[in-house]
Amino acid sequence: MANNSSIPAKTLSCRTEVKIRFCEVDSLRIVWHGNYVKYLEDGREKFGDQYGIEYITMYKNGFTAPLVDMKIKFKQSVTIGDTILIETIYRPTQAAKMVFDYIIYNKSDMSVVLTAETTQVFMSIDGELQLNNPEFFQKWKERWGC
Amino acid sequence: MANNSSIPAKTLSCRTEVKIRFCEVDSLRIVWHGNYVKYLEDGREKFGDQYGIEYITMYKNGFTAPLVDMKIKFKQSVTIGDTILIETIYRPTQAAKMVFDYIIYNKSDMSVVLTAETTQVFMSIDGELQLNNPEFFQKWKERWGC
Amino acid sequence: MANNSSIPAKTLSCRTEVKIRFCEVDSLRIVWHGNYVKYLEDGREKFGDQYGIEYITMYKNGFTAPLVDMKIKFKQSVTIGDTILIETIYRPTQAAKMVFDYIIYNKSDMSVVLTAETTQVFMSIDGELQLNNPEFFQKWKERWGC
Amino acid sequence: MANNSSIPAKTLSCRTEVKIRFCEVDSLRIVWHGNYVKYLEDGREKFGDQYGIEYITMYKNGFTAPLVDMKIKFKQSVTIGDTILIETIYRPTQAAKMVFDYIIYNKSDMSVVLTAETTQVFMSIDGELQLNNPEFFQKWKERWGC
Repeated sequence: MANNSSIPAKTLSCRTEVKIRFCEVDSLRIVWHGNYVKYLEDGREKFGDQYGIEYITMYKNGFTAPLVDMKIKFKQSVTIGDTILIETIYRPTQAAKMVFDYIIYNKSDMSVVLTAETTQVFMSIDGELQLNNPEFFQKWKERWGC
Repeated sequence: MANNSSIPAKTLSCRTEVKIRFCEVDSLRIVWHGNYVKYLEDGREKFGDQYGIEYITMYKNGFTAPLVDMKIKFKQSVTIGDTILIETIYRPTQAAKMVFDYIIYNKSDMSVVLTAETTQVFMSIDGELQLNNPEFFQKWKERWGC
Repeated sequence: MANNSSIPAKTLSCRTEVKIRFCEVDSLRIVWHGNYVKYLEDGREKFGDQYGIEYITMYKNGFTAPLVDMKIKFKQSVTIGDTILIETIYRPTQAAKMVFDYIIYNKSDMSVVLTAETTQVFMSIDGELQLNNPEFFQKWKERWGC
Repeated sequence: MANNSSIPAKTLSCRTEVKIRFCEVDSLRIVWHGNYVKYLEDGREKFGDQYGIEYITMYKNGFTAPLVDMKIKFKQSVTIGDTILIETIYRPTQAAKMVFDYIIYNKSDMSVVLTAETTQVFMSIDGELQLNNPEFFQKWKERWGC
């Protein structure tokens, strides 16, 4: 008999591309590591656009979603003229959190530039941490089956 | 007979130092030109601290002071490990504006790295341009005799 | 009779779009003014791509083209979610310089966000200012009739 | 009898302060999370200055030290006008790596803003990963007894 718990949650993910800018490269002629945090945000913004959970949607519902945790493993460098492909994958979780995994590829050969994960919590606009999923987010999860 | 108009307004200016960061230098091993906009802001923030006209003071009085004009002449480059000295000079004006001149020096030999000027206007918090000096700014000018 | 000197140089220009990022907006909820320097560079990079005069082409020919002058007039602000359209226009000049004019529009209604101009000179890789046009640039001008 | 292995390695650490800039704060009026990567670099640069292992020293010895891993736990936000204190702690390791732990405090009450760790490896200037400690680093470790 089918058991709901054995049905894996649907994987939600998206891809977006960024062409490396001159000003993002450091004196060693590689992208300065801090710029990748911006690219991860590009990934989340694209995800928000694609699945209807943009920053602005959250804000209109009375919430923000600050990062509480970020882990990055740098595998390989990229430089001016390279284009990277950012893959952003939603990781289903029970807790009142949003967790994303990321893989950034060098688009030319799809070699892995970095892997990362970020965790966000929900805060009300007046700064109170939410221990349960806000209603808008619960509905969003149901809508996408995750 | 003395004529008040011949008395030059007092010159208000300040100096602040910044040590160049690794991440501010580009692939040509010089500070990326866009970073100087940040250093000019450092100059204005220092000026605000020193003369009691910080961003936060303006904001509490109900105003912001957006830039409407910026001109920069780049004379010479600096690199990692260099320290720059930012001189910020208030330029008296009748109009409802704040105008600053800047000279950035390489601290090691006081050679000129750039000269710049910026013009700011006053906006109310709800976005209305002020054609006359806000009261708090008029008082500030009187206090400093400029 | 036709007189060559009366034929205006061909106008070379290009357009590129940028969607405003969350991290480019300041505490007043508008793009921080320093970020526009990056968008002007985006304009020049697009121009370089389109007309075959990228940074990397210059570098391979043994030259860099540092900015010596930048003027920006800020007309209007943009915010998160806005898309800007950067128009970059090459201004013909006899001197050994590259001069660009820029207009940045809010794409939604094509209202003007800013106008700007930048001047670049040519330096050899070992840092010597070029008083005459480098050969690669002279050829580029002839190719495009400007 | 004394056993060398029971003598803990000396703890090398340093502290440096940063005053938050207007342009480092986002539309939620808190420091944009990506800027903390810059502050961690400020911590490492200060450490390098204090203990004689600056970026420039490595480079002159023929090496760079790219980050391969970065983990950040964000505990609390800071805003314009706040000053942070960055504590950077060298973590002794046998491997050919440099590992740092960080605690960033809000200077006003010494509450913890974030904790972080970074791992760097050594690469020769021509891009080869070093599996053993470069000589200059081995000497540095001996000098400081760690």
